[in-house]
Amino acid sequence: MKKVAIIGASGYTGAELLRIICLHPGLKISALAADRNAGKHPHEVFPGLRNLELPVLEKFDRLDFSDLDLVFCALPHGASHTVIRQLPAKLRIVDLSADFRLRDKTQYLHWYGQEHAAPELLQHAVYGLSEFYRGEIAAARLVACTGCNAATGLYALLPLMTAGVIDYGDIVIDLKTGVSGAGRAAKVATLHSEVSEGVQAYNVAAHRHLAEFDQELSRAAGKPVRVTFAPHLLPLNRGILATIYVRGEAGEIHSVLAERYADEPFLSVLPLGQHPSTRHVRGSNYVHIGCVADRRKGRTIIFTALDNLTKGSSGQAVQNANLMLGLPETAALQSVPLFP
Amino acid sequence: MKKVAIIGASGYTGAELLRIICLHPGLKISALAADRNAGKHPHEVFPGLRNLELPVLEKFDRLDFSDLDLVFCALPHGASHTVIRQLPAKLRIVDLSADFRLRDKTQYLHWYGQEHAAPELLQHAVYGLSEFYRGEIAAARLVACTGCNAATGLYALLPLMTAGVIDYGDIVIDLKTGVSGAGRAAKVATLHSEVSEGVQAYNVAAHRHLAEFDQELSRAAGKPVRVTFAPHLLPLNRGILATIYVRGEAGEIHSVLAERYADEPFLSVLPLGQHPSTRHVRGSNYVHIGCVADRRKGRTIIFTALDNLTKGSSGQAVQNANLMLGLPETAALQSVPLFP
Amino acid sequence: MKKVAIIGASGYTGAELLRIICLHPGLKISALAADRNAGKHPHEVFPGLRNLELPVLEKFDRLDFSDLDLVFCALPHGASHTVIRQLPAKLRIVDLSADFRLRDKTQYLHWYGQEHAAPELLQHAVYGLSEFYRGEIAAARLVACTGCNAATGLYALLPLMTAGVIDYGDIVIDLKTGVSGAGRAAKVATLHSEVSEGVQAYNVAAHRHLAEFDQELSRAAGKPVRVTFAPHLLPLNRGILATIYVRGEAGEIHSVLAERYADEPFLSVLPLGQHPSTRHVRGSNYVHIGCVADRRKGRTIIFTALDNLTKGSSGQAVQNANLMLGLPETAALQSVPLFP
Amino acid sequence: MKKVAIIGASGYTGAELLRIICLHPGLKISALAADRNAGKHPHEVFPGLRNLELPVLEKFDRLDFSDLDLVFCALPHGASHTVIRQLPAKLRIVDLSADFRLRDKTQYLHWYGQEHAAPELLQHAVYGLSEFYRGEIAAARLVACTGCNAATGLYALLPLMTAGVIDYGDIVIDLKTGVSGAGRAAKVATLHSEVSEGVQAYNVAAHRHLAEFDQELSRAAGKPVRVTFAPHLLPLNRGILATIYVRGEAGEIHSVLAERYADEPFLSVLPLGQHPSTRHVRGSNYVHIGCVADRRKGRTIIFTALDNLTKGSSGQAVQNANLMLGLPETAALQSVPLFP
Repeated sequence: MKKVAIIGASGYTGAELLRIICLHPGLKISALAADRNAGKHPHEVFPGLRNLELPVLEKFDRLDFSDLDLVFCALPHGASHTVIRQLPAKLRIVDLSADFRLRDKTQYLHWYGQEHAAPELLQHAVYGLSEFYRGEIAAARLVACTGCNAATGLYALLPLMTAGVIDYGDIVIDLKTGVSGAGRAAKVATLHSEVSEGVQAYNVAAHRHLAEFDQELSRAAGKPVRVTFAPHLLPLNRGILATIYVRGEAGEIHSVLAERYADEPFLSVLPLGQHPSTRHVRGSNYVHIGCVADRRKGRTIIFTALDNLTKGSSGQAVQNANLMLGLPETAALQSVPLFP
Repeated sequence: MKKVAIIGASGYTGAELLRIICLHPGLKISALAADRNAGKHPHEVFPGLRNLELPVLEKFDRLDFSDLDLVFCALPHGASHTVIRQLPAKLRIVDLSADFRLRDKTQYLHWYGQEHAAPELLQHAVYGLSEFYRGEIAAARLVACTGCNAATGLYALLPLMTAGVIDYGDIVIDLKTGVSGAGRAAKVATLHSEVSEGVQAYNVAAHRHLAEFDQELSRAAGKPVRVTFAPHLLPLNRGILATIYVRGEAGEIHSVLAERYADEPFLSVLPLGQHPSTRHVRGSNYVHIGCVADRRKGRTIIFTALDNLTKGSSGQAVQNANLMLGLPETAALQSVPLFP
Repeated sequence: MKKVAIIGASGYTGAELLRIICLHPGLKISALAADRNAGKHPHEVFPGLRNLELPVLEKFDRLDFSDLDLVFCALPHGASHTVIRQLPAKLRIVDLSADFRLRDKTQYLHWYGQEHAAPELLQHAVYGLSEFYRGEIAAARLVACTGCNAATGLYALLPLMTAGVIDYGDIVIDLKTGVSGAGRAAKVATLHSEVSEGVQAYNVAAHRHLAEFDQELSRAAGKPVRVTFAPHLLPLNRGILATIYVRGEAGEIHSVLAERYADEPFLSVLPLGQHPSTRHVRGSNYVHIGCVADRRKGRTIIFTALDNLTKGSSGQAVQNANLMLGLPETAALQSVPLFP
Repeated sequence: MKKVAIIGASGYTGAELLRIICLHPGLKISALAADRNAGKHPHEVFPGLRNLELPVLEKFDRLDFSDLDLVFCALPHGASHTVIRQLPAKLRIVDLSADFRLRDKTQYLHWYGQEHAAPELLQHAVYGLSEFYRGEIAAARLVACTGCNAATGLYALLPLMTAGVIDYGDIVIDLKTGVSGAGRAAKVATLHSEVSEGVQAYNVAAHRHLAEFDQELSRAAGKPVRVTFAPHLLPLNRGILATIYVRGEAGEIHSVLAERYADEPFLSVLPLGQHPSTRHVRGSNYVHIGCVADRRKGRTIIFTALDNLTKGSSGQAVQNANLMLGLPETAALQSVPLFP
């Protein structure tokens, strides 16, 4: 059994890591850090963990890293880079925050409004989109998990960047996301009374995950690619649906995607003309992709659905840890979506 | 007091008509038809109507039309055209179904899969988008209320069709709608367990409201305009948000819309850069429109929010009836959105 | 037109007061206080108020009270008593907080954990359960609106206290409430992710509204009455359902309630054996009461449903203001429940 | 690997069986019957099952039972008894319907309004409340799973029936349940628009699970016990919370429950004074029980929370199958609750 710790164990992604890892046949949770809740048992913060044997939550500076194989860092962006720079140099790390996703520290400054605290680590960090960086992830010391919104769009678009089947200059991503992605901090904007029974966009054309789209799509295409991106907040907890409008033939696009993901354990491309629902991937590490031809010739609508807390964050993190530790990639990640 | 009847009073749009009209200072409900529920009091079907004095529900063929000034027809499409053709020739009608929206009967056959039963009425029917057909509506015998999805898109797009500020060939409408628009019929797809906690598209690139977009946008532009349209079903009851991606400068588009709607009592164009939420128009006849510049130059995202049962259907119907009967256009329609 | 002000206009009960009063034929909103949001227009806080002409929000100490007929105080408990003691001695006040509901200042200290700041006002304050204190309310300077949970239980129980049809020693109130009653403050416990898709009790056997049950039921019965009370938080915004288990014959209980409320404009007693739903009173000032005989002889289950923000708070407040100012009691309060 | 089949695989309990069993280390799904959906792959009915290797759905009369170790019958009550009587005499059966729960066929006639079709099987059927009938279940041919509402109440009450710590004549069960328990049939009453944003009771004092309470509580107590029972429908999918009002000391009741369940893998008794939430057992086989002392001496409120589809139905069914087949009782049932 490999020994792991979780830093930031009392947020939603921390809870999701616990949910997944506690049934993992190859990982053992050796330590948990959660500064504000230090001294509590995890089930005092998340009562659903009551039936598990887990270590008590500790303050970060009380953690003993000497015996660990890997640490998951589930802190918010801005907090993560300062914590990770303090970790022992040989300790392997899966970071769930945005702090090590952007390879260029000037981009980090631009999008996150602060200097990067650990630029020397940034250049060695690997972008954690498992299916596209498998080799690098397996060898990396530090893996930066993809943002949940970015992942949802990238699964549809990355295989198309080199296939020559769409117009790179005309990509619109209309994204619908549940509220758990906003985290467990107390904010008026995510109160039940403010979220339920309504829908609106947020951070239109300015969402920080644009930086990830820019970086990854341009890298794949070998030239600058800029998308239009409008995320919307929906009255549901888990799930992201990206509706992507492109110029290109649906049949060709579908073929590229179906071929690319034919052997991927977590990605399913639906038959041409079908489209997915988030409720059929909820609580799972699966991604469902669909392609529908528009009635206007030469235009296609691509849909991607995943669970933001699982494949969009903590499930992806475990998948990366599996790769890094030489465990079966799908270990602990095959649970079936919860429906209804 | 003008006397009105409602045919199809036991669906959601029928209930919404009752909710609005019972506080109307100029309308009196003289008769209600609802075949399956004939013999019941309205509050036996909708307990929230308990405190109102309303006529008993009757079968359609028992209605006495001799004394009526106007009838609202809230039947499903396909049922409405056969019922309306039986009404007295002088009776004025506001139809909430799709049966008289398409001026061309071959289009009706194409989109609705049946011959139109009353083509002779079709040519005199007026499309009920109040703010764009005021004069015709005031004079019409038969007004066909706009589809709720179509209205949401048209409010944003119609003023742009002649202003020359957008590219007519590149319009994408990503629409998010609540479930009450699907009506009160028992269907697996609209069960709580199937709708809550998830999102997916439906009728992608094939929704019947495309016929209304085609008809109205082309008419306004003076040439064929075809949009891309993907509606999505959301876990909420009331509300439609249209997110519309166009090529054009946000400032110019905002000016055209702000000027067009400056004197409209029910339409608000938010300051440039702001965008609306459906929860701030819920239960009201108001429409909120916002324009946001994309980070890519020359691209703009327009948002329209309205309540599908009010401005998208029954509120619109009362607004049209007000116009037809010479009553103040806003009578009974100024109730404030219910939040939260 | 009588001139009124609202203190605490940027919470949910403040917004609900604005929603109701702006269509009131006899009240005009002259001033609005909201310390944290001072300087904003109300629609910047509640975008649904966009289409109304309303004064700008001000700091409390900037308000001019000289010309006002009545002020609504929608501050939280604890804040209200210190503000109200500063108001001009002749100004009439409807307070929506708990600060003036308990006649005995030692009870206030016990339940709210602080000394009452204005005990001299407490002895003249009138409990604002409109249907039971009409005369006193009409004559009062200061009316303290009933707590939303307390009102829901009291409507079912108060008429029974003198009728001799139930056992006063065996009353169980199981209450289900929506989340808007918890207000608009940012708290983890009322986040969408924490409230939706689940249910649990809160403040079991310790909720502060117990003090109101004790006070009002004992006063009506002429002897101490103590109930068992367990409130539960439900994943909905508006609505309270009280399920009340008593010993007594359903027919007798139903008769007492039906007779008591026969002439009340806002209370409906359903036919014996029927029970209400909160969704059929949502957004309205109506209360629906039902009585069902248990299969065990001599036991009855009584149900009361109301909207916590309307009849449970701001609607009740307007009803009381109507009484105080000699306006028709139902003015501005007859809007029909919003369904669905 | 033991071979099992599921009859009625296209309802919610059927889907939940598939979700659980497909990760079961000791069970293999050999056949699936679903008459209306015969010929389809399971993922065509439940897209979340897309990534599993499962047999195609067949008509019941096409199933080959010769090689099976056990069959799960997930048909509605009324259909189940006629199907089960046709099964081979040696085949072991776990029935999820109500058809074999009541030992007395006259009770079945009374509560379900029809003659029992297989009374000869009824007398050998074992009531499937795993923790109370372990031995009988292990030896049984036919096990009838407990109703979800009944299970929720029985876990709190059964241990108290012989402990002498409560008054058997004064038990009130106020139950709150999610909508998935009503199944996947299309009904107006379970539409999203009819369920969300509201709450009401249903089948008050007349719910069929009363028959299970009567049977099991009386049997445990050794004398007739009759409870008051009012179930309520909540706007959530999964989860039941029973709030049970009894006469007895909280400390004593808590001790009895804590001792009874100390070694049970799926039952947790929270510390005295704490109470559970359904959201912390969602998607799991766990049951959380809490006891809170009322402020009135000698009265206690007991809370039980479970997931109606898992522990209340399909999880319970798998637990029983594990017992019957000599597999570890917790096999495939240890997944952690999904939160949020």
